Parts: sequence; structure tokens; C-alpha cells
Amino acid sequence: MAFLSLNDTEIADKLKDGQITICVIGIGRIGLPTALVFAQAGAKVIGADISDIIVENINNGITHIDEPGIEEFLKNAVSSGNFRASTDLQASITEADVIIICVPTPVDINKNPDYSALMAVCRDLVKGLKKGSLIIIESTIAPGVVEEIIVSFIEENTNFTIGKDLGIVSCPERADPGKIFECLKTVPRIVGGIDERSNNLAGALYKAAMGVKIVKVSNPRTANAVKLTENIFRDVNIALINELAILYEKIGINIIETIGAATTKWNFVPHYPGPGVGGPCLPANPYYLIQVANRVGYIPYLVRLAREINDRMPDKIVHLILEALNGIGKPIKGSKVAILGITYKSGVKDVQYTPAERIIDTLKNLDTQITCYDPLFKNEIVFGLPIEESVEVAIQDADAIVFCTAHEEFKQLNLENLSKLASLPAVIVDTRNIFNLNKAKNAGFAYRGLGVPVS
Amino acid sequence: MAFLSLNDTEIADKLKDGQITICVIGIGRIGLPTALVFAQAGAKVIGADISDIIVENINNGITHIDEPGIEEFLKNAVSSGNFRASTDLQASITEADVIIICVPTPVDINKNPDYSALMAVCRDLVKGLKKGSLIIIESTIAPGVVEEIIVSFIEENTNFTIGKDLGIVSCPERADPGKIFECLKTVPRIVGGIDERSNNLAGALYKAAMGVKIVKVSNPRTANAVKLTENIFRDVNIALINELAILYEKIGINIIETIGAATTKWNFVPHYPGPGVGGPCLPANPYYLIQVANRVGYIPYLVRLAREINDRMPDKIVHLILEALNGIGKPIKGSKVAILGITYKSGVKDVQYTPAERIIDTLKNLDTQITCYDPLFKNEIVFGLPIEESVEVAIQDADAIVFCTAHEEFKQLNLENLSKLASLPAVIVDTRNIFNLNKAKNAGFAYRGLGVPVS
Repeated sequence: MAFLSLNDTEIADKLKDGQITICVIGIGRIGLPTALVFAQAGAKVIGADISDIIVENINNGITHIDEPGIEEFLKNAVSSGNFRASTDLQASITEADVIIICVPTPVDINKNPDYSALMAVCRDLVKGLKKGSLIIIESTIAPGVVEEIIVSFIEENTNFTIGKDLGIVSCPERADPGKIFECLKTVPRIVGGIDERSNNLAGALYKAAMGVKIVKVSNPRTANAVKLTENIFRDVNIALINELAILYEKIGINIIETIGAATTKWNFVPHYPGPGVGGPCLPANPYYLIQVANRVGYIPYLVRLAREINDRMPDKIVHLILEALNGIGKPIKGSKVAILGITYKSGVKDVQYTPAERIIDTLKNLDTQITCYDPLFKNEIVFGLPIEESVEVAIQDADAIVFCTAHEEFKQLNLENLSKLASLPAVIVDTRNIFNLNKAKNAGFAYRGLGVPVS
Repeated sequence: MAFLSLNDTEIADKLKDGQITICVIGIGRIGLPTALVFAQAGAKVIGADISDIIVENINNGITHIDEPGIEEFLKNAVSSGNFRASTDLQASITEADVIIICVPTPVDINKNPDYSALMAVCRDLVKGLKKGSLIIIESTIAPGVVEEIIVSFIEENTNFTIGKDLGIVSCPERADPGKIFECLKTVPRIVGGIDERSNNLAGALYKAAMGVKIVKVSNPRTANAVKLTENIFRDVNIALINELAILYEKIGINIIETIGAATTKWNFVPHYPGPGVGGPCLPANPYYLIQVANRVGYIPYLVRLAREINDRMPDKIVHLILEALNGIGKPIKGSKVAILGITYKSGVKDVQYTPAERIIDTLKNLDTQITCYDPLFKNEIVFGLPIEESVEVAIQDADAIVFCTAHEEFKQLNLENLSKLASLPAVIVDTRNIFNLNKAKNAGFAYRGLGVPVS
């Protein structure tokens, strides 16, 4: 079957009847849920990945992704016969009518986009692709990567002409970790195809499978720009509020009180300060755009500065810990610091680019004794440190208790009980504004909060 | 009557019964509407201003402010006997129970806050104030100005103790020009008093007079920070979108299409590119915070960079005009450029810090022939230029037609008719994305839009 020759009704009907085969390449945080939702909608789905362990586990119904509802989705998909995982990318591509690429696109140590996983997929594509297929790229990439790199690579290495023999679209994922299944079915999809047919086919497929609104844009580069613009908007606004938090702390103003009051204005949108910005998207995405901009000789100073501000927040937090310990007459060297929360986001088991890692590394260099607790990593080893089995164990004899993530469990903590375990005088360093000065004081702790004046 | 001794019910009752006298100092864009709303609510209001002409006109029912509904409000307030204007600030202050300060707080040529009008009012305050009065500052000021400057000045120059004999609060105006009366009655008021009593009294007064929600914050400095945070948020987001607009134009992406698609994500908030940021607030407010920050040795780089990006947009527009003319083979020197729209905002008769002024000045230096039209300034002289009586007159024989404001009238223009008047080949330079490439092309114009790729 040539997918490219179908119309909207045929796509919906064939999807339901199990006559469309989709290969999702990269079955991680986004790829696996996406694959499972297509399988639920009736498609025959192959989840292709280079990891033997992940593929084997998934075929046995065991998922490596921590996402609400995923076990149930996986169980149903496997038992329905609509889903299987495979390490044979080339064969999976050949079998598929539609290839959806969800591989990671991180940045390297020099903050340059690392498209190596994507290019590896392209090498499999040119060996496996059959005429009439549609290629969909969900991975976040810079504007121009599809048009200038992927299309050229495929045309140079096959006899196919993109637009005629194959379709290609960018359809960047827009899901929020922790709510991915909900997002897949509710957040409108941006579809930017190399031609109108690719656009229409991808739109019809996502609409039929997920029931979402489709937003068609002019071309792949625009779809990629939309995704980057969304995440840069967040990165810049978090950087702004981090900058203001540090300033307001110095001039006697509480940032959280300020944000709360400002939010009563119709055109103000709250963002919150924190120890830095983590996760797979925000710390990397702006650099994709910066690289493209550099090539045309236009430095996006604001985008770059925002990234740098957020990137330096872990150092700011270490400084806050140092000040906090100093305030109770203790040096940072040799003090026992309990890090509570290591994930980049509350409730999501993910430590990609998490600020806690940089905070821990810097504290190690200052000869601090570190203990760690995170409810999502109990009894595991992360960043070379054992994650304790409870808050209580982690804070035993602590001089400073540093909250890096606002996990729900932390919001319920009884600080009075904790102060009996800590090595008083002890200080709470609150990078997420979970507590406040009075609560900490009443429990017998000193307190330093990000964006909270000392007195 | 000592206003400070009243409770909430007494304030509401006495306001209605005409037993509360309010002196509003500075009867401009915010002060006059504020005074009129208090008069409508029953207060005896004196609008105090240093301008003889403004005071005389207002007492004759003639307003210098262009704001929907203001003539009716003024007529009613004057005829009810609840409102009069006066140039005698000292006597007005003495007569009043509550003094509301609405004087302008611009920045000087070096971008330093200019509090001279506010300090002049303080000199009148110390001569006129009576015990038991409440001072309310609506003018936008930096955090700390109330606590560190105004309170000290009053206590040093009177026998009064603030908090005991007098109350003082910051209650920054949050109204949107063009919708001021609507905003006064719907947008929550931020009230930050020097003490709890001041806070409560000011809250009760605004609530009784305007029916709005009151948001009490810890102190004046926090109220001022809230106002600055709101406007800095806007300034930064407009700067971001201006930066992206310029970049996207270079890499073949339409910023307006991108913003439209991004807005379908739950946490993206659209802002739009433009020729610069004008008006009394945004171009000035960030500098108040920058000055305070400099004093504590903390440069808010992001706030400053955003301001600079927006401040340079008029130059970018001149460059766009130059490129646009070049594209049709005309030099900018000697060409006739019609500027359509000189106000900083559509539909609001205000040219404070308007980007059009800088664009006009720069074009003059390039020996361009300039004509101007703005529906709100017909037949007036502005920036040394006559404002024509119609679009048609302004664009007669024009080589470039530059839209600087998105007035409603412009959106209705028939470009085919305009092309008959212009000196073809002629180009439309659209800084507000009112039109698009196809519309302009079909009408026989070349087209350059901010954030719109050339092809």
C-alpha cells in the first residue's frame, strides 16, 4: 500500500482496521507513548530502538519510562497484537507505511546540537524506505534541518524524490512529561510538510489516531520554529524571574508575593524561580536556534543570555547554601548537606540536565558531605551517590537541607520532626519556595529561600 | 475628620455621603479618570495640577485627555458639584482627607528616573498636610522610593510621624490606555502600605469607590515591584519576539504564522513584533529597577538587554525601509516616505516615547522627504511635521508607505486604490503586520514586513 495515495477517509478507516503500519523510531519518553497511542487507535506499530535491553523488556511488557498509565497502555498494546518492539530498524522501516522519528536531539558539551542519533536513523532510512511512505519527524530540531540536511541526504542516497515518491513532515512533539498521554490527545499538533500532500496526510493520521486539532504550517522549518519558540518563551521567562528573584532578595522584596500579586493583571503570566532549568527540551532547544542564527550572522542575544542565566542558577544555589551555612556559623567544608529532590521536575522520574547534578558536583568540590533523597529514585545510585530510602535517613545530622525539587511528598513534611534529626543549628535552603521563613523558624530551622529576603 | 480613624463601613458610608475629600495631584491620563471615578462614587474631589490651562479647561468641562467616555464622566462630575480642578496644590492638600499622587515619573535623557514632579509634590505635601490624612502614590516608582525618600522627607520637614499621624501607601495604577475607565472598575488594585492601617484604609477606599478586588502586599516596595514586574514582563517578551522576528525573517520563517501556531500550546502567550515600544510605562519602567539594582551591585542583564533591543527597533525599521526602497531600485535619499500612524498604540492619542518619532528623525537625517498621517492627529503639527488630513494626501507620490501603528482605519484600507496615488514602483513597509505579501503584491506594491521573509 502506498500511504501517499490515501485520502483522509481511507486513512481513518484503514487505521481502525489495522491496515496501516507505523514504525516509531526511538521508544523513549515520547516515542513509546506515541507508539502505544497509535497502536490503541488500531495501527500496527513497531517500536524500533537500538537498545537490546529496552526492546526485550518492552516486548515482555516492562517499560523503562515512568509515565502515569504507561503500564496499562503497554499491556493492552502488546496483548492486542498491535504493538511490538524491534532492534531491526531497517526491516521495520521497510515494513512501515509511516515512519515516525522520536530520537533524542541533545546538545554536546560545547552546546552544539547533536543530531547523531537522527543521522544514524537517516542512514537506516535510505536502506529501508519503500516508495509511497511518509516520514514524520517528532524530534526537536532546528529550522532547516529537514529541508537542508534530511531531504538532501535521502535524495542523494536513494532513487526517490521527496514530494513525489516520499512524503516528509515535521510534527514536533508538544507533550508535558508526567501528562504525556493526556497531552497526546488534547494538545493541537503542529504539522509542517515538505509539500501539501505530506501536510494533509500527517494531519489526517494524527487527527484519526489522537482526535487532536491539527495546525498546518507552511513547511517543516516553520513547524520546527514553532516548537523552539514555545520552549524559548519558557526559558526566557524563567530566566527573567530568576534574575528578578536574585535582585528582589537583595532589596527586601519577596519574589513569590510579587508574582502572586502581578498575576492578578490580565496580561501577566506567572513563571517561577528555581535552581535551574532541566529536562530534555529547555536546556537544549535554544542552542539549536542559536546555531542557525550564528550561521546567518545574527546573534540572538536575549535567547542566549536567558540560557546562560538559567545555566548558572545551580552556582547561585551553591552560593545560597554557602551563605545559609555561614549564617549559622558553619563552613561549607565538612558540613553535611542533604539534597532533597534530584529530578528536574516534580513527580517526573527524569534527571536529564537536572540542576541538582551541578549543585552536587560543585558541593563535592567544596568538600561537603552530601546525602540525597528523591522519592522517585529510592535506594538507587545516581550521580555516584546512594539515594537514601527516606527523607529522615537523608537528613540525619544534616547542617543544611536543600530542597531542589518540589515533589508532593516534600510539601507534606513536618519540619518540627525533621529538626529533631538535623544537627542544629541547621538551615533549610529552599530553591522551590515550598516553605517559608516563619514555618522554618517555628520548627527551629534557619531559612534561606531563593528570592526571599533574609529578614 | 481624621481619615486614619475610620473603619471600612464608615469609609463606604462617608464616601457615598460626600463626606470624604480627595485631592488627586496630577490630572493627566491616569489622574483625571481616577479623580472622576472617585467623584462619581460620591467623594468631593479636587483635581490639582500645576498647569493653569489644563485646570481652567477642565473646570469648563474641556478635557485634554483622549479616553473613551471621559467627556461624559467630566460633565457629570462637574455638574454634580463633586469635582473641581485647582492649581493651588497646598490648599487642596490641606482640604483633603486623602491625597492621591498621579504625577508622571519619566526617565531623563540618560535613562535615569526623573522623580522631580514627585519631589515637587512632596514639597507641597509637607506644607499642606494635616494630621490623620492618607497619602496614596499611584505613580510608578522604584521599590524603596516611598520608604527611603518620601517618608524621610515628610518626617524631616513636618512634626508628623508616618504610621502614627499620617498613612502612606503605594497603589500603582494598572490601567490600559484606551480602556482606563473599564480597567479602574475591573483590574484588581495592588495596595502596599507603610503599615497595616494604611493598607486597610486604602483598600477599603478603592473597594468602596471602584468595586475592585484589593490585593494587599507587605509594603510599598513590594507594590512598586509588582508594577515593575508586570511591565518588565511585557517589555522582555516583546523584545524576545522582536529578536525572533528579525532572525526568522533571515531564515525564511514568518513570525506571525509562528506565533499563531505556538499560541495553540497551553503555556505559550503571544506577544507581537513592532517598530519599538512606546507610551509612558514600558520604555521607562525597567530603568527604575535597573537604577535600584545598580545601587546594590547587581546588574539585571536580561531586563537591560530587552530594553535595548526594543529601543533599537526604530533603527531596524529604518533599515527595513532602506532595504525595501533598495529592492525597488530607489535610494532612501530624496525618496518620499509616507509614515502612517505616529501614536505608540493603535486608537490611543499619545505619542510619548513613540517609535515613530525616532523613525522620522532618522529618516530626516537621511534626507528623506517625509509625509505623515495619523487619524488621531489630523491637521496638527507633530515632531515638526504637518499631519495630513487623510491617508490619500499623505501617500500622494510616495515611494514607500510605512505603517507604524495598527490603527483600525488602516486595516480597512484598499491597497488597490492607494497604488494609484503612489509613485510606482512603490513599497509598503509593514511594521505591524497589518497586510501581507500577497495583498500588497496584488495591489501592485512591493512589500516588506517585520519578521516576514522576502520571498
